[in-house]
Formats: sequence, structure tokens, C-alpha cells
Amino acid sequence: MKAEIITIGDELLIGQVINTNQAYLAEQFNLLGIFVEKMTTVGDAPTDILQAFHSSWNNFDLICVTGGLGPTHDDITKKSICQFFNKELVEDKDVLKNIEELLSNRNLKLSNVAIEQAKIPKDFTSLKNRLGTAPGLLYQINHNGKNKYFLSLPGVPYEMKSIIENEFIPFFKNQKVNEFILHRTIRTTGIIEAHLSDKIGDISKLLGTDDTAKLAFLPSPRGTKLRITIRSNNETFAKNKLLEIENEIYSKVNNYIYSNSDIEIEEVVGKILREKKLTIAIAESCTGGFISNRITNISGSSDYFLQSYITYSNQSKINLLNVSKSNLELFGSVSKEVAIQMAIGAKNNSDADIAISITGIAGPTGGTIEKPIGSSWIALSDSENVISKFNNFGTERLLFKERASQYVLELLRRNLLGLSI
Amino acid sequence: MKAEIITIGDELLIGQVINTNQAYLAEQFNLLGIFVEKMTTVGDAPTDILQAFHSSWNNFDLICVTGGLGPTHDDITKKSICQFFNKELVEDKDVLKNIEELLSNRNLKLSNVAIEQAKIPKDFTSLKNRLGTAPGLLYQINHNGKNKYFLSLPGVPYEMKSIIENEFIPFFKNQKVNEFILHRTIRTTGIIEAHLSDKIGDISKLLGTDDTAKLAFLPSPRGTKLRITIRSNNETFAKNKLLEIENEIYSKVNNYIYSNSDIEIEEVVGKILREKKLTIAIAESCTGGFISNRITNISGSSDYFLQSYITYSNQSKINLLNVSKSNLELFGSVSKEVAIQMAIGAKNNSDADIAISITGIAGPTGGTIEKPIGSSWIALSDSENVISKFNNFGTERLLFKERASQYVLELLRRNLLGLSI
Repeated sequence: MKAEIITIGDELLIGQVINTNQAYLAEQFNLLGIFVEKMTTVGDAPTDILQAFHSSWNNFDLICVTGGLGPTHDDITKKSICQFFNKELVEDKDVLKNIEELLSNRNLKLSNVAIEQAKIPKDFTSLKNRLGTAPGLLYQINHNGKNKYFLSLPGVPYEMKSIIENEFIPFFKNQKVNEFILHRTIRTTGIIEAHLSDKIGDISKLLGTDDTAKLAFLPSPRGTKLRITIRSNNETFAKNKLLEIENEIYSKVNNYIYSNSDIEIEEVVGKILREKKLTIAIAESCTGGFISNRITNISGSSDYFLQSYITYSNQSKINLLNVSKSNLELFGSVSKEVAIQMAIGAKNNSDADIAISITGIAGPTGGTIEKPIGSSWIALSDSENVISKFNNFGTERLLFKERASQYVLELLRRNLLGLSI
Repeated sequence: MKAEIITIGDELLIGQVINTNQAYLAEQFNLLGIFVEKMTTVGDAPTDILQAFHSSWNNFDLICVTGGLGPTHDDITKKSICQFFNKELVEDKDVLKNIEELLSNRNLKLSNVAIEQAKIPKDFTSLKNRLGTAPGLLYQINHNGKNKYFLSLPGVPYEMKSIIENEFIPFFKNQKVNEFILHRTIRTTGIIEAHLSDKIGDISKLLGTDDTAKLAFLPSPRGTKLRITIRSNNETFAKNKLLEIENEIYSKVNNYIYSNSDIEIEEVVGKILREKKLTIAIAESCTGGFISNRITNISGSSDYFLQSYITYSNQSKINLLNVSKSNLELFGSVSKEVAIQMAIGAKNNSDADIAISITGIAGPTGGTIEKPIGSSWIALSDSENVISKFNNFGTERLLFKERASQYVLELLRRNLLGLSI
């Protein structure tokens, strides 16, 4: 099954917004065995939209359109769909009910504009949008014995994703498709992409020559993901091949892998803390709350996360964490001594089982020759001892936060599992 | 001048890579007065590439292609260009020299593969690539008195950017183009898109009927951006028209606007705090560090941000912020009384001029009938008084954090500026 993704929006054509919807949709469609062959972006102009629909509907089995479903004048996708398929708009009771619920939950009134959103093209099915007022729209016909699908989704990424996950994927899994595409993502951290590649060695030897397997290296500031993809008509073959490659990768770079499912390290760490019934406190300076934010992004984190001290100023390090003034003066706030005092202070004052601290220079200014931008001291204090580590996470502020938080969470994971640090 | 951007690469079609090149190129072209009307992505397949060239070359004045210029077997863009324009490959001495230099700088030898890269399609101009071996390629013809351009660039983002900045922009600024494209982004928060649209009213009245102006609504959990775009041959006219529309929007929804440049509210708030020489502390429960993280994303935030208390557990609210046990028992942790005590505690214990607190239920679990998921109490304590506010930020954890942080930062901004709250 071949698909085209059409994204609509002037904001994309002027470069104000990076098109993340395309990549997300392409990934999801691939997992469903739908092969994306083309992606097109056009502006909020009726002629351009209709032209895109026209050329796509003739050539592909699935057309997925995002954007232009909102309530304002520049949202013209629904109108264009009606024109293209020669359909009128009819009220959809489910959509209306959903809009009423969403607005009343947030103490908002139902406006005329909102009521307009409850109208959908005749013969289309509405797909529930749990997070916004514009529903997904699905049209399905059988053309020469083959199913053809037209899917229209809101452009707001989280709304689009919610509809794909909760509505489209369950629907499509009930359709009969004969190809199996299996993916496995292995997440690594603490090693750069080139070294990871060196350690894994000859890719063609790893994947075999039958062209059913692919391996992608996906680097980011948090580490490199390895994605294995198997395409086959035989499900058992695909599963065995996937397992074989996964085992081979583990045998080579096991020490850098923190997960073989596509979840963040804060979720991995959270599970371990819950299993071990341990609690944690954090003392953050340079990361300014980013580590705590990542930990509390996980639902249920209140089971193990007690509190954090975001001690940006020196005085707050003294007041909240009992860091000594003399250490601050003697060694500076970015020092092993201060990091250790922060971790111990956080552990004692919070009564947590483990405390971790970080103090550093996030940049882009503030470095010195002895302590260049990016310099960081990290300390971990648990029931047994205190360890400290130095690292440099680079000169770009937001990248610094990404890298530093990942390092801290991996340090915590290794400490919890008794792995070498 | 109308343009299409064509990006080439299988990695884009399976969602492995987010296409950031498109947005970068679109932004740069807009600044040059080149209007991007379409973007297309195809895989590393000769037929698809040629088809994309064909439909584009007929319809646009500038075609910009990225990707597929590398040295390996799957890089087929140059071959496709030769086929499309019916040109042969000829060696380019400048490119060869550049490749030799790049390789010798890294102590690498000139290989046959590298020499192949020095060949470019006849009648094309090479654009120097300072960071890699594949040059940019530019073809220019005069068609019915109008200039037409075909630009091909490597897909590696930093190489592509380097060629655009150092080669294409200086070249294009010497070409005579008569169009001016102006953009202004006005950022609003605290009002949903549909209501904002209602308040702004008749768009055609606002923009006029001469088709030079556009207004886009760009919603996100942090608020809705309004983007005005003016296209005109007359620069003064364009500037005046932009100002006129901006003023009209201000007159209607002034109360929801926090910036008329494209910056986040934490930067707006940071500037005000610095100007007023005020310091701030935050007490976060449900947002778990997200507000502090946003504030510290701004370089120089240590000038006004002292510290935060991430008090997730009840005990930490008592210990760090002097919240009374009786209030926690009587009213619960998500209550007006506790929020107020948190703000006062944070202010007193940190010595900050202003403290803001938030306590709520971020979801997706943990709600009750009286306090459904999303419920939040926020309090602000400054030198004069304490205010408190209730809000519901919805049931999805990460969206909750986005909305809540935006609300808190806007409350702070309004308080700092003495606006109604």
C-alpha cells in the first residue's frame, strides 16, 4: 500500500514552523506496513490544495492530509475536501458532543465558530479528537477491488498524534494488509555515533544479504538510537530475524544500552526506583529544573520523586543545601566540593534514599580559562557512599541541558543497578 | 518570484529524520523576497526525482533541490539533473581544488570517488562547499524575459546552510527582484483560537481587498500566534500596511498580547525583571520543574532567578515552604490555602522580591469529583500583596505543564506591568 502525506499551512512555507508531522506520520504508517512514497506541502490556498488532492488521489492508496482544520478563516481544508469529493457538510452528533465536553471541562462557552467544527463532509467518518475541537476525517472507498483511504487530520501535533494513536491505528489494524514491517529501537547513551558504529562493525554481515533488514543510526543530544527494521511477508521469519540482530547488537554494545523499547531514560529509571521502593531528591543548579521536569514527566513519579532544590544563586546553595560559604569562596560554585555538599545536603534535608546534584556553566557565556563553558560537576549520594564526576557538556545552553540531564539519569540508572560507573 | 523546494531522501519518507532543511530554506528565501509555494519530498528513486523536477520546472521560477549529492551509490541527484537538462558531466577546477584542500586538511588522500564529485553538469555554476566535498550547483536561464533558477544543494544541514549563506545569498542579492515580503508575529495567550478570531472579527475588513496582506492563526498549548504577511512591490506601502494591521489587532485584543516579536514569554518576563531589578523564586509542585526550566532557558537568567522549590511530596511543602500540616489535611495539597502558603514561604525563605507557586493535578490519574484532573491553584506573593487563582489545564500531563507554565508566566508578566489580573 502506497501513501502520500500532504501537509497544509503557510507557516510551513515561510519556515516559521519545522514540519514534524511528516516524520511522525511516516514513522507510524511504516509501522502499519504503509509505504510513504511522497510528501507534499502547500499553503492555505484553495487552488494549490485541490491540485495536491487531485494528483495524489490518482496515484496513491492512502492520502493523509494535515492542517487547515481549525475554526478560523485560514482553515480551508474541510471546504476543499467538500469541493474535491463533491460532498456537502453535515452535522456529526459525536463531534458536537465531544466539542461541548472539551469546552465545558475548561469552563468555556460553545461559540458559533465551535459549532461549525461539528460539521463534516457527508459519507466521511469522524475520528475523535480528545485534545481539540477539530475531528479527524476519514473517507474510504473500494476502487477496482482495492481499498482507498483519504485521511484528514488537524495540524496541531499533539491533536494529530492523539487521533492517529487512539483512532486511526486501531481502525487500520483491522484492515487486511499482507506485509509485516517490524521495528525495534535500541537506545544507547554515553557513546558517540561513530564509535558505536565502529563497535558494531560490518553492517552487511550483521543484517545479512537478503535485503529484509535495515539498521538506522539516529543520533541526538540524549544519545544514539539504533533502529532495526524488518520487512517480510512471513511474520515468523521477521520476528526471528529481528531477535537475531538485536542479540548481536547487545553482544557488542551492551554497556551503552539503557532500553530496547522506545522510552526515555527517566521512565527506565522511574521503574527501577519503584521496584526497589527507593525515593529520590535532586539538587540542580545549571540545569535549572530540567532534570526534575524530565523525572516528573512520567505519570506516577510522585511514588519515588520527593522534591528538588533548584539552587541557582550561591546564597540558595548555602540556605537550602548547607553548602559551606568557604567552599564556594575557595573552590567556586562549579567544583567537586560544592557538588558533593549539594548532594549530601539534598539527601539529608529531604530524607530521600538517593540524592543527585549538578553544578556547572550552561553557557553561552560565563566560562573562564580554568572552567570553560560546559564544565560540570555531578555528585550522587546514597545510603552507602558519595561519588562525583566531572564532565563537559558543550557551549550551547539547551544542548547542555539535554546532555547533562541524560548523563545524570544514566549515572543514576547505573548506580541503581550496581553497574560500573 | 515563486519557488518550490524539493528534498530527496529515503530517510525522510520513513520518518527517520525530521526535515529541517525545508524550514531553513523557506525562511532564507522569504527574506530574499522569494515566495515558496510548494515543498515536495521524494525518495532516492530516479523516476520520482525526474517527475518532481518536471512538474516543478514548468511551474516555478526557482527550484531548490537538497539531498542525494553525496559520493555513495544511492546519491543520484546529479545524474538525474544531467538527464533532465540533457547535460554531460564536466570537471570543475574550483571544485577539485576545494576537495583537495578539504581532504589534505584532514590528512586524507584524494580518491576516485572524490574526483567524481568534482564533475558538474555542463553550463552549471558550482557553489563552494566549505564543509564538505559535494558542491552546490546552480543553473540559470532567461525564459520569456524572466530569470529561472535551478539550485541543487547537499542534504547535510550544515553544508547546505554554509552554501546558502556564503554563496547563494550574496549571488541572489545581486539579481534584481522587485518584491518585498514582510512578516510580523504577534503572540497571544489566555484566549482560545476561536475566541481570538471572534474578537478580531471580519478578516477581509482588517486586511483590505487588495490581496497584499494575509493573517494566519497558529495555535499551540502556549497560546495562539497571529502572523501578518505583506507582499508588495512597494516597500513603503508594505511597511505602512503592516503597521496599520498590527495597530488594528492591538486595538482589539491588546489584553492577550505578550509580544509582537517571535520570542517566548519567559524571555519577555526576564527582560522586565532585569529592567525593574527584581528577583524571583518559584515553588512548583505539579509542574515539577518545568517553569524553572523555562525561565533558566534564557541566557543571563541568573540575574533575576534565585532558586526554586520543587515540592512534590507533602512533607517537602512543610519542610521547605512552611506549609502548615493542618492546611494540607483540611484543604488538601491542591487548594488555595496551600498555594498561598507556598508562595509566601518561597518568598520569605528565598528573600526574592516575588515568588510564584503552583499546586495541582497534572494527570492522567489522581483526580477526584471535587478536584478533577487538571485542577490547579496558583499564588503570587510580592512586596505588596498575595493573589491566588484557580484554573484547569486539562488532563494530559505534558500539555498540562505547557499550559500551566504559560499561565504562570503570563500572570507574572501582568503583575510586573501592573495590568489587570
